[in-house]
Amino acid sequence: MMENFTAYIPTKLHFGKEVLSELPVSLAAYGKRVLFVYGKGSIIRSGLYDRIMHMLTEEGMEVVEFGGIRSNPVVEDADAAAKLGRERHVDVILAVGGGSVIDSAKIIALTIPVNHSGWDFYAKKAKPRQAVPMIAVLTLAATGTETNPFAVLSNHTEGKKDGYGHFLCFPKESFLDPALTLSVPKNYTAYGIADLIAHCFEMYFGAGDTSLTDRIITSIAREAMEYGPRLLDNLYDIDLRSRIMYAATLALNPLTGYGKVSGDWAVHAMGHVLSLLYDTPHGASLTIAYPAWLRFFEKPLNNRIAALGSEIFRENITAAETILRLETFFRNIGCPVRLSEIGIGADQKEALFRGFISNEVNGGNMKISTEDYPRLIEWMM
Amino acid sequence: MMENFTAYIPTKLHFGKEVLSELPVSLAAYGKRVLFVYGKGSIIRSGLYDRIMHMLTEEGMEVVEFGGIRSNPVVEDADAAAKLGRERHVDVILAVGGGSVIDSAKIIALTIPVNHSGWDFYAKKAKPRQAVPMIAVLTLAATGTETNPFAVLSNHTEGKKDGYGHFLCFPKESFLDPALTLSVPKNYTAYGIADLIAHCFEMYFGAGDTSLTDRIITSIAREAMEYGPRLLDNLYDIDLRSRIMYAATLALNPLTGYGKVSGDWAVHAMGHVLSLLYDTPHGASLTIAYPAWLRFFEKPLNNRIAALGSEIFRENITAAETILRLETFFRNIGCPVRLSEIGIGADQKEALFRGFISNEVNGGNMKISTEDYPRLIEWMM
Repeated sequence: MMENFTAYIPTKLHFGKEVLSELPVSLAAYGKRVLFVYGKGSIIRSGLYDRIMHMLTEEGMEVVEFGGIRSNPVVEDADAAAKLGRERHVDVILAVGGGSVIDSAKIIALTIPVNHSGWDFYAKKAKPRQAVPMIAVLTLAATGTETNPFAVLSNHTEGKKDGYGHFLCFPKESFLDPALTLSVPKNYTAYGIADLIAHCFEMYFGAGDTSLTDRIITSIAREAMEYGPRLLDNLYDIDLRSRIMYAATLALNPLTGYGKVSGDWAVHAMGHVLSLLYDTPHGASLTIAYPAWLRFFEKPLNNRIAALGSEIFRENITAAETILRLETFFRNIGCPVRLSEIGIGADQKEALFRGFISNEVNGGNMKISTEDYPRLIEWMM
Repeated sequence: MMENFTAYIPTKLHFGKEVLSELPVSLAAYGKRVLFVYGKGSIIRSGLYDRIMHMLTEEGMEVVEFGGIRSNPVVEDADAAAKLGRERHVDVILAVGGGSVIDSAKIIALTIPVNHSGWDFYAKKAKPRQAVPMIAVLTLAATGTETNPFAVLSNHTEGKKDGYGHFLCFPKESFLDPALTLSVPKNYTAYGIADLIAHCFEMYFGAGDTSLTDRIITSIAREAMEYGPRLLDNLYDIDLRSRIMYAATLALNPLTGYGKVSGDWAVHAMGHVLSLLYDTPHGASLTIAYPAWLRFFEKPLNNRIAALGSEIFRENITAAETILRLETFFRNIGCPVRLSEIGIGADQKEALFRGFISNEVNGGNMKISTEDYPRLIEWMM
């Protein structure tokens, strides 16, 4: 039985060639003073920074800058940016980058109007009441943050990397020009593909009996598995970049949850531990965690895994064969599928165990408890 | 190559059991005076009319009623309702019914603020500048109007049935409780299933090179073809009603067009002629028109038709086999696939020919001209 749901995605998505030309007008609708948030300099090297500064100046905007958002973003950066935005009374936030920058901007948008850390939203010590409007320009196809209300941040003091979602976190508008992703290197392109496939699976293995939503989820995964490898052989093919960018957007669009009780997200929680401990890129952490999780749940999810494989590979295959083929796929696109491949050995088992505990790796649909951690960690080795 | 697109669906969709309980609050957000638009009395017989009147009265709303919107709706009804709404200064429109009522309400919403017929928007004599907010309660799974900006009306004076689309036509909110469709009789349930499948095909055969959008389109068609026949054997199964209702919503949601140049819509134009001349139910007109259109274009669209069939039926089949199976599917769910089955004989060829001309059956992606009409009509006989 399908669950009740509300479908409402207030973000206006501009997709395609040269859509950035509409950015200044979109920003100006919210005011003159913009907090321009970006990462560690790749947009400066690519020239995008200059292009945007030029556009904003032409439009007569006053720009307050906050650069240097780290990948695997941390709440300290978001808090510092929010402090700046609060002091300078910005009207609107412009986030230019990948998931790290845009997720940070979502929390900055909530934090500017209040007098506490953005982590208080994660810790459920505070509820957002308002947000500074935020507009996103995406430069990396991966997380789907551009049309959803979720933000993932780390808090190293608490040893946690966690996701937070609130209606007020939807970007007002998102600009996706696939040309901006042409310079993404091969490894990060592969991590993005892995990330979007992992999002499909987290929703597929979520709770709830949906048929059409499942078909859409597997359609997105198939799209990524068909065009992903081609893109990795042709990094400057704008058409392939477009297809992967759109697939990444849909993979964590609220659409993939309609009629479901929830996604699962244990694999993301496991991956977050790797990112916390070893700064593993998010996509790479998922390709290590997913095969382990699938093997751990191979028995109880036998039919469901086999159905996924049979749908994706269009061949009647078993759960075991599905796991093997997915692992092979991740390996073939250049992603690690074992901790040993990223230089993490058996001496880290204890640290991982403690990480699983402090990051509360519980699972959504398929529950995981502390006794399960050693076996899950073993599968990742 | 994917085309640029803007994804923005401002409608808030409430889907599931008892969602109607939220209706009064949603309406009241727009004001006190509501224009309550409905059809020819099925909501009175079902008790929905009383239920809604009770809810509105409890909320302290002032209700202005316009009942009697005809199926295959005509612009005269919309104009009359708009006149009433204008005179009574309504704040918001509540449309309760199927596609006919909701499509009419979209045009009523545009027409209330102006001093001319709603047909002027279709005839491109007028451009909308504002609209009265409109909230829809859907009682028939079929047209997808609940989350799109399109409205189909007939103008018998001009011998035209046409679609119109404008951003201002999106409902502000749509309420879809599958329980409200439980009493839809078998034939109209089948027409709704046919209609939603036809929407998938109109988009599939549209112009543009999209892969993920095509996968989503065929996913929706497969959903309808799997659960549609089951529903027809179990009309009171709420779970099957839910699945078909959601499929119908997505089938003509803007999502199925992202990255495409356009849909085709020739089959709808052909079907509209049947509805104009013989008041044929919309869904039934499409199951007659589609096989004819597919046979007409079997050669130029050979690969595309075969790919559709192979994807939908999960078997490598030819274009000819695809057409045959689709026709068989429509026949098996109780829909007519030839004019003869609805009592229209060869003596109507001339009338149909003139209808094709006055209704401008041109085709979107696959062009059709006057010389093609006799063969298309022959295929429908």
